[in-house]
Amino acid sequence: MAKVKKIINETENIVGEVLDGYVAASMGKLRRTDDRVLVRTEIEPGKVGLVIGGGSGHEPVYTSYVGKGMADASVAGNIFAAPAPQFVTAAIKAVDQGKGVLLVYGNYAGDVLNFDMGAEDATDDTGVEVRTALVADDCATPDLATRRGIGGGFYQVKIAGAACAEAQSLEEAEAAVNKCRQNLRTLGVAVSAGSLPETGEPTFTLGDDEIEIGLGAHGEVGVERAKLMPADVLTTKMIDHLVADLPYQAGDRVALLFNNLGATTQMELMIVARKAFQLLGELGIEVARCDIGAFFCSQEMAGFSISLLKLDDQLEHLLNAPCESITFTQG
Amino acid sequence: MAKVKKIINETENIVGEVLDGYVAASMGKLRRTDDRVLVRTEIEPGKVGLVIGGGSGHEPVYTSYVGKGMADASVAGNIFAAPAPQFVTAAIKAVDQGKGVLLVYGNYAGDVLNFDMGAEDATDDTGVEVRTALVADDCATPDLATRRGIGGGFYQVKIAGAACAEAQSLEEAEAAVNKCRQNLRTLGVAVSAGSLPETGEPTFTLGDDEIEIGLGAHGEVGVERAKLMPADVLTTKMIDHLVADLPYQAGDRVALLFNNLGATTQMELMIVARKAFQLLGELGIEVARCDIGAFFCSQEMAGFSISLLKLDDQLEHLLNAPCESITFTQG
Repeated sequence: MAKVKKIINETENIVGEVLDGYVAASMGKLRRTDDRVLVRTEIEPGKVGLVIGGGSGHEPVYTSYVGKGMADASVAGNIFAAPAPQFVTAAIKAVDQGKGVLLVYGNYAGDVLNFDMGAEDATDDTGVEVRTALVADDCATPDLATRRGIGGGFYQVKIAGAACAEAQSLEEAEAAVNKCRQNLRTLGVAVSAGSLPETGEPTFTLGDDEIEIGLGAHGEVGVERAKLMPADVLTTKMIDHLVADLPYQAGDRVALLFNNLGATTQMELMIVARKAFQLLGELGIEVARCDIGAFFCSQEMAGFSISLLKLDDQLEHLLNAPCESITFTQG
Repeated sequence: MAKVKKIINETENIVGEVLDGYVAASMGKLRRTDDRVLVRTEIEPGKVGLVIGGGSGHEPVYTSYVGKGMADASVAGNIFAAPAPQFVTAAIKAVDQGKGVLLVYGNYAGDVLNFDMGAEDATDDTGVEVRTALVADDCATPDLATRRGIGGGFYQVKIAGAACAEAQSLEEAEAAVNKCRQNLRTLGVAVSAGSLPETGEPTFTLGDDEIEIGLGAHGEVGVERAKLMPADVLTTKMIDHLVADLPYQAGDRVALLFNNLGATTQMELMIVARKAFQLLGELGIEVARCDIGAFFCSQEMAGFSISLLKLDDQLEHLLNAPCESITFTQG
């Protein structure tokens, strides 16, 4: 099989050049500090800080979500690899306004290790208080403790951004983001693999007529490998799994997110969305907000995820609060 | 080569199900009239009407850009095929508020024929005045008259939406959109083909190490077939071609659009953006606004386009005016 062609320069420069691209496209709103940290040029004095981050190659997550009402800084690792601790430390110091800093990132062992080390070093150096609210929305994994952070992470970052902008204290922001985590479930499906940009090789293989429900963003095993099926059958399977997991009930209000993992068309996502709205309607679950797009990708993987976030007044307010970033803006 | 897997139901239902998805996801802001027309549920009384449209399969263009400050209705054809005239007629009638209706769509022979026929029938029936401002931004074609409408169409639709919302007359809106057309240039590059969702077959073929600069959104021939090259070399070729075409000059202010044709990653687009900003800076061309994302796709084609829109005060005001739609919102 031919290697996947990528529009890049030297592979060792990918991450730095991507960050330079974000700085240029931000029109003065972002700057780089150290090698792997993207930070807002102006941060509101006295706000609770928010640092996000993770492996590169999943753009827009996480690097694109730095801006007013979103994160104050992001930390980028190599492709599909956790950021190094010293850059976490640098990011925390860069955003600290005296009220402490919240870290939001995906629940992967390497990230947890490096973010914890980086936070400890920052606290040792300056006394800054740091808390963590992991993204862990992938309900393909039965065990709550090991759930991965996938597409629903966009909602958690959005809510964290608003919570840190409005909160009087780090504890208050942390509590809101943890409530989001508890109320958030995502299930993905992979149709074809993405590739490693350094090598052009696919990260996993699926048969010509196969899909995998629940596959992780790096090719981790899912809940069911199946033959390609009609969109309505697949959507029903996915919504059933999601609704059973929390469980969501008649009368609940939810936000509904369709995330394109890379090469899936909006045409397909709209067909899936149509069926999901119908199924949720039959269950008496009210959709209060819907987002459709590429929020958390895995290179050119074909596939998508559906996320359900159970809303209360606070979460709905935070989700709808204004924000600006290169990939996502709302008034 | 294996057929491309798509998450769809029956192929003959694709377009209707996509439109139903848009209606559902719009949270009450859009409705379908007739089979292939998507229209705003509330249109400001007395405004100049705006109808957009074209073949399906390029989502988000055009169907996603219906909303406040954007188009009042869109008309969808079959996959990669012009909309039928009777749906154009229906859309014009649905949005007409007595001030006339502007049509904005890509410069393809079938679309021109069918939109013209549909407009004539609407005028015959109700006397509505209809004008047309074609999207024709693809500077891969030397002949101005046959230039295709590609990625820059997003800017033209955005400006048309604001112009029709603000204008006192159809002529005033038409003039602003035609100025946008005159100031807009786009050049694309294809890295790998998209497929026809009905058959799973690719729309064209490129060698394992080949790209094509200037390839059209349906596989039409471009300006140069070349070996895969570093991102910086490719970006330089593309910016040189774009800047020579208008020509843009030192001191110009421009909006800069990077459009993902489908499967290209944001990682790659940021690397390209970084180089494009650098090159424009060296030419003394000031970038006043930058947009990066999937605005005009061709199924899962890998590739992207760069658009330059030379701004004046009016165009910049219209481009930055607030708007709402499923795919693009700004406050």
